[in-house]
Amino acid sequence: MITVPVNLDKRSYSIYIGSGILNCLGDLIKGLNFGKKALLVSNPAVYQRYGEIVEKSLAGGGVEVIAGEIGDGEEYKTLDVAAGLYDLAFSCGLDRRCPVIALGGGVVGDLAGFIAATYMRGVPFIQVPTTLLAQVDSSVGGKVAVNHPRGKNIIGAFYQPALVLADLETLKTLPAAEIKSGLAEIIKYGVISDGGFFAWLEENLGQLLGLRAAAMEHAVETSCRIKAEVVEADETEQGLRAVLNLGHTVGHAVEALTGYKVFSHGEAVGMGMAVAARMALRMGMLPEKEAGRIISLIERAGLPAALPADFTPDEILEVMRRDKKSLEGRLTMVLPAAVGQVRIIADVTGETVKKTLETSI
Amino acid sequence: MITVPVNLDKRSYSIYIGSGILNCLGDLIKGLNFGKKALLVSNPAVYQRYGEIVEKSLAGGGVEVIAGEIGDGEEYKTLDVAAGLYDLAFSCGLDRRCPVIALGGGVVGDLAGFIAATYMRGVPFIQVPTTLLAQVDSSVGGKVAVNHPRGKNIIGAFYQPALVLADLETLKTLPAAEIKSGLAEIIKYGVISDGGFFAWLEENLGQLLGLRAAAMEHAVETSCRIKAEVVEADETEQGLRAVLNLGHTVGHAVEALTGYKVFSHGEAVGMGMAVAARMALRMGMLPEKEAGRIISLIERAGLPAALPADFTPDEILEVMRRDKKSLEGRLTMVLPAAVGQVRIIADVTGETVKKTLETSI
Ligand SMILES: NC(=O)c1ccc[n+]([C@@H]2O[C@H](COP(=O)([O-])OP(=O)(O)OC[C@H]3O[C@@H](n4cnc5c(N)ncnc54)[C@H](O)[C@@H]3O)[C@@H](O)[C@H]2O)c1
Ligand SMILES: NC(=O)c1ccc[n+]([C@@H]2O[C@H](COP(=O)([O-])OP(=O)(O)OC[C@H]3O[C@@H](n4cnc5c(N)ncnc54)[C@H](O)[C@@H]3O)[C@@H](O)[C@H]2O)c1
Ligand SMILES: [Zn+2]
Ligand SMILES: [Zn+2]
Repeated sequence: MITVPVNLDKRSYSIYIGSGILNCLGDLIKGLNFGKKALLVSNPAVYQRYGEIVEKSLAGGGVEVIAGEIGDGEEYKTLDVAAGLYDLAFSCGLDRRCPVIALGGGVVGDLAGFIAATYMRGVPFIQVPTTLLAQVDSSVGGKVAVNHPRGKNIIGAFYQPALVLADLETLKTLPAAEIKSGLAEIIKYGVISDGGFFAWLEENLGQLLGLRAAAMEHAVETSCRIKAEVVEADETEQGLRAVLNLGHTVGHAVEALTGYKVFSHGEAVGMGMAVAARMALRMGMLPEKEAGRIISLIERAGLPAALPADFTPDEILEVMRRDKKSLEGRLTMVLPAAVGQVRIIADVTGETVKKTLETSI
Repeated sequence: MITVPVNLDKRSYSIYIGSGILNCLGDLIKGLNFGKKALLVSNPAVYQRYGEIVEKSLAGGGVEVIAGEIGDGEEYKTLDVAAGLYDLAFSCGLDRRCPVIALGGGVVGDLAGFIAATYMRGVPFIQVPTTLLAQVDSSVGGKVAVNHPRGKNIIGAFYQPALVLADLETLKTLPAAEIKSGLAEIIKYGVISDGGFFAWLEENLGQLLGLRAAAMEHAVETSCRIKAEVVEADETEQGLRAVLNLGHTVGHAVEALTGYKVFSHGEAVGMGMAVAARMALRMGMLPEKEAGRIISLIERAGLPAALPADFTPDEILEVMRRDKKSLEGRLTMVLPAAVGQVRIIADVTGETVKKTLETSI
C-alpha cells in the first residue's frame, strides 16, 4: 500500500493506493476517532460488487453502515437526491462526528462530498474511488458538487476528505471506456508537469491498458502526487489550479455540442489536449516533435486526437466563449510549452483558435 | 461608524455599525474588488423599506443588483427556495466573483449565506442585518444554513462573510417582539463573558428598550466583539463556542414543545437563561445574588423568566435529552459561574435538571 500525503494545513490527509485494500478501510478509519455510524453512498453497479467487503471491514472497525444507494449516472448528481440522503442520515441518527463515505466513481464522490460538506455544517468525508478517473482526478483536491438544471457542478464547495482509499482491484470490473477516461487525465498530468512521467507512459502504455497492477499503481500514485501538488498550491482555484484544465476548454465545448452523449469525458479531453498541442505549435511555443509526442500518446491510448466533423470551428468557438470569460474577445487557454510544462495564456485570439480547430478536424 | 474586526486568518473581515449607514455599502464594497453584479436576497417587508437605498448605494459603487426576493418567514429557509435563487443567479450571469448580499434578518442571512457558500463552490458574501438578533448574533460567526423537514439548520456550512454592515436605523421599523429577541442574546453575552457589560445593561436597559442610538450602538458593538472573540477561538464549533448556547438547551426544548408558535426565540432563551441561573445556584456554583441579577434583568427586558405550566419537567427533560448527546444519561449544560463567566458542565444529572425545572414554573 502506497501513501500519498496531501498537505493542506489542518485539512491535510492521506491517499492510500494499492491492490485489494478495500478491506483495510475499517482499520484506517479507527485511528480517526469518528462517530460509530457512517453513511455509505454508492450506486447499484458498485455496491453490489464492493459494498459487502467495505461494510464488513467497517464493522470490524466498529462502524455501523447506513447504506445510501443512489441511481447510476450523472443525472442523479442533484440537490434532490442529496435531500433524500440528508433525510436518511438524519433519521438514522448520524451526528456531526459520523463520516460520509463515497464508494464509486466521480458522480458518487461529488454528491457524497457535497452532502458531507453541508450535512450539519460539515461532517468527516471519506473517498473510496472505484473508477480510474475518480482515483486519479475527482477524489483528489476537494471539489465537491451537484448539478443544477442550468449547468454541471453549479452548486458545490471546496471540502477536503479525511482519507482517500483507492483499490486498484476495483478497476478490473470497470468498462474499458471508463479506463480510457482515466487515461486521458493521466496523460494530462504528464503533459502539464512531469516530462519523466510522460516518457514512462510512452514506455508503459500497454501495461496500463492491460491493467497490470505495478504499472497501474505507479500511474495512479504519480497522478495523485501531481494533482496534490497543484491543489496544495491553489486549494480554492484562484489561479494556478487552472493548469488542470488542459484540454478541457475544447473538450467541454465538444461535450456540450453533443449533449454529453456521443463522447466520453476522456475522449473529449483527448481531443482537447490534441487541439491544445496544435495550438501551441501554431503559436510557436511548442516544438513540432513535442506536439507529435502528445498527439501520438493520445491516439495510442485509444482516444481521438481529431475533432468530429459534425460541427464547424465557429460553433465550437462560440461555446468556448460562453464557457470562459474573455478579455476583449480573446480566450484564456492552458497550452503546453513542452512535454511536462504548461502555460496559462490569457490572450489567445479567436482567429488562432479557429485556425487550429480547422486543422484538427 | 464603528468597526469591529473579526480575525480569522485569510477569512478575516470587518463589522461596520452605525446609524443611517446603509448608503455606505456601495463605497465599502468598492475596495473589495468583487464582480460588478450582485445577488441581493431579501424579503418584501425589508426590501420595500430598505431595498432602494441599498440598490442606489451599490449602483454608486458600480454594482448592478439582481433582486432575489423570498417569502417572509422561517418556512422559506429551505433547499427549494435556495434552488430558485441559484437559478436566478445563473441566468443573470453571476460568476464566482459576484457577491451575494443578505438584506434582512437571520432567515435571509442564513439562506443567502448558504447560497454564497455553495453557488459555484463559494462566492463573496455580505451581510446587511436588519433585525437586532441578526445584528448581534446570526450575522456574526459564519454559520449559514437552510432547514430540512426533519430539523432546523440541518444543511449548512461555516462560511464567513467578507463584510457585515449593521445599520441601527433599520431597527426602528422592527416589531417590538423582535427587539426583545435580540435583547435576550445581548443579555446572554453579558452573562457569558463580560460582567462590566452586564452592569452597563442593568443601568441602560431603558435606553435600549427606547432604541436610543448611542446605547444601541454600544450594545451591538459589545455583543459583536464578544461573539467575534468566541468565534475566533473556535470557528467551527469544536468546543468552546458552545458557551453561546447559554439558555438555548432549555429554550429549544420549550420552542420544540410549543411548535415554535407560542414563544419567540428570545422569550425561550430568556426562560432558558433563568433556568440556567437557578440550576447553577442549586449546584452551588453561583451565588444567590448573582442568580437574582440575571433573572431580574431578563424580567426587566420584558422576557419571561418562568416556564409555562403547559408541560411537565419530565417532558422538557425528554426533549433536552433528544437534543443533546448525553454521557450516561447526564446532560451537558452551559451554566453561569458568575455574572460574566460561564462553564460547560458535562455531567449534570437528570435529577438536578428536573428539580430546577420544577422550581422554574
Ligand atoms: N471533483 C472533481 O474534481 C472532479 C473531477 C473530474 C470529474 N468529476 C466528476 O466526476 C464525474 C465522472 O466520474 P466517473 O468518470 O467516475 O463517472 P461515474 O461515477 O458515472 O462512473 C462511471 C461508470 O462506472 C461505473 N462504475 C464505477 N466503478 C465501477 C467499478 N469498479 N466496476 C464497474 N463499474 C463501475 C459507475 O456505476 C458508472 O456507470 C462527473 O460528474 C464529473 O463532473 C469531478
Ligand atoms: N447563523 C447563526 O449563527 C444564527 C444565530 C441565531 C439565529 N439564526 C437564525 O436566524 C433566524 C431568526 O432571525 P430573526 O430573528 O432575525 O428573524 P427573521 O429573519 O425572520 O426576521 C424577523 C421578522 O422581522 C422582519 N424584519 C426584518 N428586518 C426588519 C426591519 N428592519 N423592519 C421591519 N421588519 C423587519 C422580517 O421580515 C421578519 O418578519 C432563524 O432562522 C435562526 O435559525 C442564525
Ligand atoms: Zn477531466
Ligand atoms: Zn439564540
